[in-house]
Amino acid sequence: MKVLGIDPGFDRLGAAIVERVHGRDTVSFSTCLLSERGTPLPDRLAALGTQLEAVLEREAPTHVAIETLFFNKNVKTALDVAQARGLILYLGRRFGCSIHEYSPQAVKVAVTGHGQSDKTAVIAMVRRLAVGVPSDGLDDEYDAIAVGITCLAHEARGR
Amino acid sequence: MKVLGIDPGFDRLGAAIVERVHGRDTVSFSTCLLSERGTPLPDRLAALGTQLEAVLEREAPTHVAIETLFFNKNVKTALDVAQARGLILYLGRRFGCSIHEYSPQAVKVAVTGHGQSDKTAVIAMVRRLAVGVPSDGLDDEYDAIAVGITCLAHEARGR
Repeated sequence: MKVLGIDPGFDRLGAAIVERVHGRDTVSFSTCLLSERGTPLPDRLAALGTQLEAVLEREAPTHVAIETLFFNKNVKTALDVAQARGLILYLGRRFGCSIHEYSPQAVKVAVTGHGQSDKTAVIAMVRRLAVGVPSDGLDDEYDAIAVGITCLAHEARGR
Repeated sequence: MKVLGIDPGFDRLGAAIVERVHGRDTVSFSTCLLSERGTPLPDRLAALGTQLEAVLEREAPTHVAIETLFFNKNVKTALDVAQARGLILYLGRRFGCSIHEYSPQAVKVAVTGHGQSDKTAVIAMVRRLAVGVPSDGLDDEYDAIAVGITCLAHEARGR
């Protein structure tokens, strides 16, 4: 199994390919896709979707892992992230991937063992758990790796 | 100009092609795309997106017209509609359409002259304003035609 972990967003979209190689979680690719600030949302979604299609085509993942939506205080941001997430789910299915959704808490539990860990603790554990984690990634990239690791932990038990 | 009017949804998605032919707003195609209830959202989005791609390919609209998101009381529904809307905006741009967004009130004003008109009044005026309106459509189909008419009224003045 080859997991594409995604941290959804319309401004920055984290994407990481995580696989188990010789028994170790291995990041073979990770990036943070960007869209241009100040441009209309449809254009930003088109830019992100085109880049994501290129990743799906080149990397041919079998699974897409993504956090469930949580509703934060900013309605506008939540709705815009939801719109980005819709096209991610759509493209994942179009490229034949199974889709796996995890709550933010489930990701923290899978990576750190605790549901209340902060961002720093998650990133520190991501580095210890997986090979190939970039040293200078953006938060979105580490979040994408973390949800990819979560998917491997849930789906690849005993493999 | 050839407008694809869309009433976004993950359960039912209204779609209508509206053009001005010999000075009259004309509906050359309208439908309500459906997804299967009880199936996971990614599968529903994939089903709707595939059908919508077929419409975009066959009808080759130049404009996509869609209502702005409004936040209703049901958070879950609003977020799911937002996810469907994201893939619609994405596909519209991918097929080279310009995207035009109108508030529900702007649509009512364009179709009935009043921002507070109810659904029945909107449907009645849609029938009077446009040629080729189906007699037995679903609400979503009439909403798609209404937003298409709104786009023609805004973008095709004087043509």
